[in-house]
Amino acid sequence: MLDLSSYLDSRRQQVNAYLEKCFRAASSSGRLIDAMRYSLMAGGKRLRPVLCMAGAEAVGGRAQDALPAASALEMIHTYALIHDDLPAMDNDDLRRGNPTCHVQFDEATAILAGDALLTMAFQILSDTEFIDESRAATWLTVIQRISRAAGCRGMVEGQMRDISAENATLTRPALERLHSLKTGALIEAAIYSGAVLGDGDLEQISHLETYAGCIGLAFQVKDDILNVEGDPTLLGKGVGTDESRQKTTYPSLMGLEASKAFARELIEKALQALASFDHRSDPLRAIAKYIIERRR
Amino acid sequence: MLDLSSYLDSRRQQVNAYLEKCFRAASSSGRLIDAMRYSLMAGGKRLRPVLCMAGAEAVGGRAQDALPAASALEMIHTYALIHDDLPAMDNDDLRRGNPTCHVQFDEATAILAGDALLTMAFQILSDTEFIDESRAATWLTVIQRISRAAGCRGMVEGQMRDISAENATLTRPALERLHSLKTGALIEAAIYSGAVLGDGDLEQISHLETYAGCIGLAFQVKDDILNVEGDPTLLGKGVGTDESRQKTTYPSLMGLEASKAFARELIEKALQALASFDHRSDPLRAIAKYIIERRR
Repeated sequence: MLDLSSYLDSRRQQVNAYLEKCFRAASSSGRLIDAMRYSLMAGGKRLRPVLCMAGAEAVGGRAQDALPAASALEMIHTYALIHDDLPAMDNDDLRRGNPTCHVQFDEATAILAGDALLTMAFQILSDTEFIDESRAATWLTVIQRISRAAGCRGMVEGQMRDISAENATLTRPALERLHSLKTGALIEAAIYSGAVLGDGDLEQISHLETYAGCIGLAFQVKDDILNVEGDPTLLGKGVGTDESRQKTTYPSLMGLEASKAFARELIEKALQALASFDHRSDPLRAIAKYIIERRR
Repeated sequence: MLDLSSYLDSRRQQVNAYLEKCFRAASSSGRLIDAMRYSLMAGGKRLRPVLCMAGAEAVGGRAQDALPAASALEMIHTYALIHDDLPAMDNDDLRRGNPTCHVQFDEATAILAGDALLTMAFQILSDTEFIDESRAATWLTVIQRISRAAGCRGMVEGQMRDISAENATLTRPALERLHSLKTGALIEAAIYSGAVLGDGDLEQISHLETYAGCIGLAFQVKDDILNVEGDPTLLGKGVGTDESRQKTTYPSLMGLEASKAFARELIEKALQALASFDHRSDPLRAIAKYIIERRR
């Protein structure tokens, strides 16, 4: 039996060490770097990096070969959080229990720290000191997929829709599309990247993308559920905020119990997509279950 | 004799057509895409794309092979302008004679449009439909150089220092470093990318980098001069703003006449760096002269 908690710990340590290495290589200091590090090292779950590395393992590759991609994905995720929290956007003061970047530093620094993290992600994805020339085409494919997932037909468009959706009631297909853009696309890109870097074949990659689509959405449904009945202390952020902002959520559209059933259904579907994989996909199986059981 | 004006027109048309193609390929519409296009197609000089393509030509390559890199550089330049203009940063209402992105749309949209343009740049640089697999390693090198130039040890750090420098008097080395980060690095990356994509050799690339360093700085010195004695109608933005904001500029540090002499000196040095190149570097020679003669 896989011990998920120690698996996650070990992967997080790998990612954190790699991220630290990236900053040491940057070898400069100052307010901009401080702000980037502040948000990046604030104790996130590292879900995208872990999924990326677990994707590589599931197809028989080595987790460490996906480490640069995993780290770049966390930088992209962190930049998005910093910008989403800005006064002009969600105007959040707290993130993971700490002051958000623009509160801790200032607005200009937060905008620039986000910009720099996004840029640094692509620097890491193209680090020719790490990447063997024979693998260049593979890394280009990874950059292509990640940039598509993060951009104007992916994560950024999702945030745009999220902002426009405040004070408006969305239909369920519109809510699903929003989440698919805002969080699903990057989660899928994470697993895709790991699988490609682990030399998975097309059929394996296709199954893993189904898995990723399901857990990405389940993650969001669970987030909505936690915003209704979660523990603010464990979450490091307030609850009930979706309702007070009149946000359309799964609980608001279909009720709390039906939302929980929907999340379970998605996780079942994710596990089915892994049916043809051996024990090396056990981390992915465990992560799927963790997503609906998590309390933060 | 090269007719610079028609050369620039033809290169700009190529770039604009390629940028339009990128947006058609994106095939979605909406407020985010509108904001991206609004700023990107607002009639910029396309200096970075032209330098990139001219760099490819100077080493004997084809301008069109550098077109994706040229277009990506313009996206990065435009994203930086959008974010620099934000209320939390320079708080500018006008850009190229038109309302800035956050004035025309809103602040959240402007932040996201910038984010999406930066991301789209890397999507174009890794477009595996355009890029031949045998050239993958070369494109990875280009991505590496551009992301370094744009990030926390390049353009973003330059903007960070520019903000901190308001109401403070900089020394000349500090001002030079600021410009080298904020504009020089990306201009150097533009010519480097063109030269690498045009299959230039190491010696050629080294000369072209010297050229780029000189014209990048000369461009900035000229910008400072235009802010003192330029025509607001031609410039599409106000003049005298540096002085009223107490910004350290070349004219404020060394006087107007000495600034002009310094710009001429830099252009001389840029032309010397091209001494071993044949007529195919004539566009670069003409651009160097244009940089100090320009009125907008």
